[in-house]
Amino acid sequence: MKIVNVGLSTFAEPLRAAGADVLQVDWRPPVGGDPATALLIAHLAADERVAAANAAAVERILAARPMLLDLKPAAETIPGLGARTLLHAGPPIAWERMCGPMRGAIAGAIMLEGWAPDLAAAEHLAPMLDLRPAHDHQSVGPMAGVISPAMPVWVVRDEATGTLAYSNLNEGLGRALRYGANGPDVLARLRWLAEVFAPAVRAALKKNGPIDLGALIAQALQMGDECHNRNVAATALLARKLAPVLVRAAPREAAAASLAFLEENNHFFLNISMAACKATMDAASGAPAS
Amino acid sequence: MKIVNVGLSTFAEPLRAAGADVLQVDWRPPVGGDPATALLIAHLAADERVAAANAAAVERILAARPMLLDLKPAAETIPGLGARTLLHAGPPIAWERMCGPMRGAIAGAIMLEGWAPDLAAAEHLAPMLDLRPAHDHQSVGPMAGVISPAMPVWVVRDEATGTLAYSNLNEGLGRALRYGANGPDVLARLRWLAEVFAPAVRAALKKNGPIDLGALIAQALQMGDECHNRNVAATALLARKLAPVLVRAAPREAAAASLAFLEENNHFFLNISMAACKATMDAASGAPAS
Repeated sequence: MKIVNVGLSTFAEPLRAAGADVLQVDWRPPVGGDPATALLIAHLAADERVAAANAAAVERILAARPMLLDLKPAAETIPGLGARTLLHAGPPIAWERMCGPMRGAIAGAIMLEGWAPDLAAAEHLAPMLDLRPAHDHQSVGPMAGVISPAMPVWVVRDEATGTLAYSNLNEGLGRALRYGANGPDVLARLRWLAEVFAPAVRAALKKNGPIDLGALIAQALQMGDECHNRNVAATALLARKLAPVLVRAAPREAAAASLAFLEENNHFFLNISMAACKATMDAASGAPAS
Repeated sequence: MKIVNVGLSTFAEPLRAAGADVLQVDWRPPVGGDPATALLIAHLAADERVAAANAAAVERILAARPMLLDLKPAAETIPGLGARTLLHAGPPIAWERMCGPMRGAIAGAIMLEGWAPDLAAAEHLAPMLDLRPAHDHQSVGPMAGVISPAMPVWVVRDEATGTLAYSNLNEGLGRALRYGANGPDVLARLRWLAEVFAPAVRAALKKNGPIDLGALIAQALQMGDECHNRNVAATALLARKLAPVLVRAAPREAAAASLAFLEENNHFFLNISMAACKATMDAASGAPAS
């Protein structure tokens, strides 16, 4: 007698215990047992065009070579970003339905842009603005992920396909816009990042040339980073790489303060790896039937 | 029947295979079977003063807190270093019995000091100099480990005991004095390290304050360094820490060139971890009966 048990393994175990030879097949009804959806999925699974397109998409992901090219104001960089547009990390969503931290970040960005004199006015103005998902503009940001026109954004390009992606600057831990904080300390740091840090690092990047993010991330992963909440290796490797060119390309005090920010912020690299992932995954998107 | 087998396990295995219960004791005659030395060791092992002193020595090793304090010329730093003294990594050994790489390093150091006009004259002078083990002067260096009076040395102190240790600067891979290379390129880099790099980094260290090497090494070990042939994490963390103070404390081009050296040399931290180990182990030495 040969026994094949499909599904619940509790039927196979007593037979095995009694010495029988049982083949256990791990299976459960697809899509929670919904026949109509299961049939749709079966059609997709059986369609050779889908399998080929999926393979092509994975191929593009594996072939991606994200390079860090630049750091410049979102207004000059992100396609379709209007003068009164704010990007966020959510799906399409109206101000009224946004959670507290995202509202806080939106209000802070309005203050940063000088579109309102105080937070109350900013919250009053917010629903009238063009609030859009960052993903629709090739952009990403952590948590609330708010990007406003004056903010500097990283420019990352997948060299294999030319796909571009953008992300804002990491502010460090503690009170930060991405968590919804919008006090004077948060806005002062965002202004410093835009006015001092970004021009200095931009000049350094121009002098250095593009940085191979795939190689840097691969090395950081070997050093214990996972490039989400552990970024100390990638941040230290980037800081070490930028340091000499930063000193030669930027005013002395701007270089020193920028290097001090890179020293204090162990999460700095996060936003860069997000843009690298965005460029990599967008490179694979749009393949018909995938 | 209970069986105890002492020594060769091949006697125990057939008994075990036959179902007997065998206790195997892993033992071999001490000191290769020399009874007189074995008796001496037995006396030491039985002596409670030795056990207590060994425990105290291990305690000091575990309690050590090596701190990086300074980087300055060996002549001003290492106690007992005469004007015509060269330190090396070997035991007490005369020039005639030194291996080729150590002779090459000694000759290079003589050229660096300006004690001879060429390498032939340097090799002629060498036997007349005061050549000493670096370990006798609280100092260490990798490979040939030659330290001459004009070379800058790291100053490391164990804060728990006040024990001081010194090491020279890492030159990077390729042609280097520590491997016995002594050509113009090697000497030019050693001069640059003494005249440009060391004063810049010294000024940065003074501005920064002492660096906790125990903490830095512990983090680097977690990041995949073993601090001998893999030093990229410790070097990057040190470079990131020094970068902002270096920019503020040193002339611009000296800061930029020093940061470029730290960027290119993945082995830079090695000599610092060697001095940290030297301070740690010397802190444990000299305990009577250990």
